[in-house]
Amino acid sequence: MSAERRAPVTVIGLGNMGTALAAAFLEHGHPTTVWNRSHEKTKALAERGARVAATPAEAVTAAELVIACVLDYDALHTVLDPVADRLPGRALVNVTSGSPEQARDFRDWAEGQGAGYLDGAIMTTPPGVGRPDMMFLYSGSRDTFTAHKETLDVLGDALFLGPDPAVASLYDAALLGLMWSTFTGWLHGTALVGADKVAATEFTALANRWLGGAVSGFLTRYAAQVDEGRYPGDDATVDVQIGAIDHLIHAAADRGVDNALPELLQATMRRAQAAGHGGDSYASVIEVLRGSGGAKA
Amino acid sequence: MSAERRAPVTVIGLGNMGTALAAAFLEHGHPTTVWNRSHEKTKALAERGARVAATPAEAVTAAELVIACVLDYDALHTVLDPVADRLPGRALVNVTSGSPEQARDFRDWAEGQGAGYLDGAIMTTPPGVGRPDMMFLYSGSRDTFTAHKETLDVLGDALFLGPDPAVASLYDAALLGLMWSTFTGWLHGTALVGADKVAATEFTALANRWLGGAVSGFLTRYAAQVDEGRYPGDDATVDVQIGAIDHLIHAAADRGVDNALPELLQATMRRAQAAGHGGDSYASVIEVLRGSGGAKA
Ligand SMILES: NC(=O)c1ccc[n+]([C@@H]2O[C@H](COP(=O)([O-])OP(=O)(O)OC[C@H]3O[C@@H](n4cnc5c(N)ncnc54)[C@H](OP(=O)(O)O)[C@@H]3O)[C@@H](O)[C@H]2O)c1
Ligand SMILES: NC(=O)c1ccc[n+]([C@@H]2O[C@H](COP(=O)([O-])OP(=O)(O)OC[C@H]3O[C@@H](n4cnc5c(N)ncnc54)[C@H](OP(=O)(O)O)[C@@H]3O)[C@@H](O)[C@H]2O)c1
Repeated sequence: MSAERRAPVTVIGLGNMGTALAAAFLEHGHPTTVWNRSHEKTKALAERGARVAATPAEAVTAAELVIACVLDYDALHTVLDPVADRLPGRALVNVTSGSPEQARDFRDWAEGQGAGYLDGAIMTTPPGVGRPDMMFLYSGSRDTFTAHKETLDVLGDALFLGPDPAVASLYDAALLGLMWSTFTGWLHGTALVGADKVAATEFTALANRWLGGAVSGFLTRYAAQVDEGRYPGDDATVDVQIGAIDHLIHAAADRGVDNALPELLQATMRRAQAAGHGGDSYASVIEVLRGSGGAKA
Repeated sequence: MSAERRAPVTVIGLGNMGTALAAAFLEHGHPTTVWNRSHEKTKALAERGARVAATPAEAVTAAELVIACVLDYDALHTVLDPVADRLPGRALVNVTSGSPEQARDFRDWAEGQGAGYLDGAIMTTPPGVGRPDMMFLYSGSRDTFTAHKETLDVLGDALFLGPDPAVASLYDAALLGLMWSTFTGWLHGTALVGADKVAATEFTALANRWLGGAVSGFLTRYAAQVDEGRYPGDDATVDVQIGAIDHLIHAAADRGVDNALPELLQATMRRAQAAGHGGDSYASVIEVLRGSGGAKA
């Protein structure tokens, strides 16, 4: 397909991430217009065929699809407020990170200007942009998503999470939280086996297999339990896990490995036990994490 | 292949796990002898073709390969000490859970009796026994592993981790710790998105994809950094993560979700930052977890 046949796109903000986004569009032959506050970051992209806009107004008017990727929402308003009159009829896709509440407020503002609005969360780092296995999460206007999905798929697998624009950033926070927990649990285990001279790369090959196999199977099973609000402890109960984590704590203590994380996990399990979930599955621990604001299924 | 061609095997201890092990051997046509302290648990297996031994001595002498799966090491000694004279020349595979130190002591005892010894860790629950994707970890005598690998593969994927008998149980503790961290981070995220009415099953489909894709990729990259003792923060530094986890903490606090876990994770990252790793990758956090006993690569 010739470059002329691809949808034109504008990228506003050329930090590490915005640069990767624009580069992916160029690589796939999309006529790409870019703008950045500091002009010098446009040069490498111009050499690869990007059209450099002199002003945000010129950038916004260059394409129906406008992607904004700046530092934060303050920067977003600084750039876009003055060009609000250019937004009617355009699709504004904002992948700047922020809170769920900021996403809702910005949707209200953008739709108030007559733009179709999508809020996005990029679940990878710049080197992962353009890989079809990487997830790009969007929520907000379904029409906007449908109209531009093919173009957005150039960046990674474009997934639509529903009409509430806050949901993409809520998933973002939740998935990053899962990542940090997993990272830290993995590092604790790596330190533990490392004390007995097991290489991190050796342990990690099995750790990845464990996560992708048995652990992932448990998550799928437990998710259904959470949605049902019933946590049958068929094979592994909270009581049994409280006992088993003692083995980990002792083995790590013997090797001088910091136990703040497993001790917190054990204390959390004990709270579930005290709330009457000792004979239930680990999924029941959600009952002590969930706030009064939590929607019980 | 007829049942006669399969290696005979003995299973001592028929709790939930031992019963699943014996059933898998029977299903694959191995002549299987079983013994359990309480006789009634042998009945269902006898109906499926197991030979029931009247005493531990009879059980041990029925096969060259003897698998022990009882509650703990006290139970193990109670059963096996009186029949030590039957062990010479046999392969004793102990999948009873215990500490790395208990595994080393028991290896010394078993080898002292003239048995080949393997310590095992079963990385699944009873319903997972017999699935070739489930991991069974073994360490100890390589000769014993090699001689019986084909039979052990009936239970799940038999992996040999080296001659130190403690390593299987050390991996077991480390992998379970990773599991509990992942479970709890996942439940925190599930509670967070659940507060805005996202179903656990919906979130979990993406959570599993995230773990198996981007997160697994990070672990592989970071493992090499841990082994090198250098943690280049190319794309995501500890400083950036400390800022990003604030978004999670605020979004969760707004929704009444308990933040003990992300707060501990942030405090741990801050300790790495204080130790000079702010510009390094998350892998550098191992430096503050690792004890003085930790082997630095
Ligand atoms: N990097 C990642 O791995 C990653 C992953 C997922 C999401 N994100 C999100 O993507 C967004 C951009 O990240 P990044 O990594 O590209 O950050 P970055 O490299 O620090 O770039 C920040 C961008 O924001 C612009 N900017 C800052 N203040 C501005 C202002 N007042 N007016 C106009 N422009 C302003 C900068 O312009 P100058 O060049 O003129 O300074 C630059 O283009 C952030 O919200 C980040 O959370 C990043
Ligand atoms: N279940 C799992 O998901 C799982 C996963 C991995 C590892 N494991 C490990 O596998 C081992 C067995 O677990 P399980 O789930 O089968 O436990 P279980 O159902 O409680 O069975 C315990 C077994 O130990 C026997 N036993 C206890 N005390 C004894 C004694 N003093 N003398 C002789 N036999 C004694 C019991 O005999 P009686 O029938 O006579 O009481 C029974 O056969 C444990 O070390 C466990 O940590 C279990």
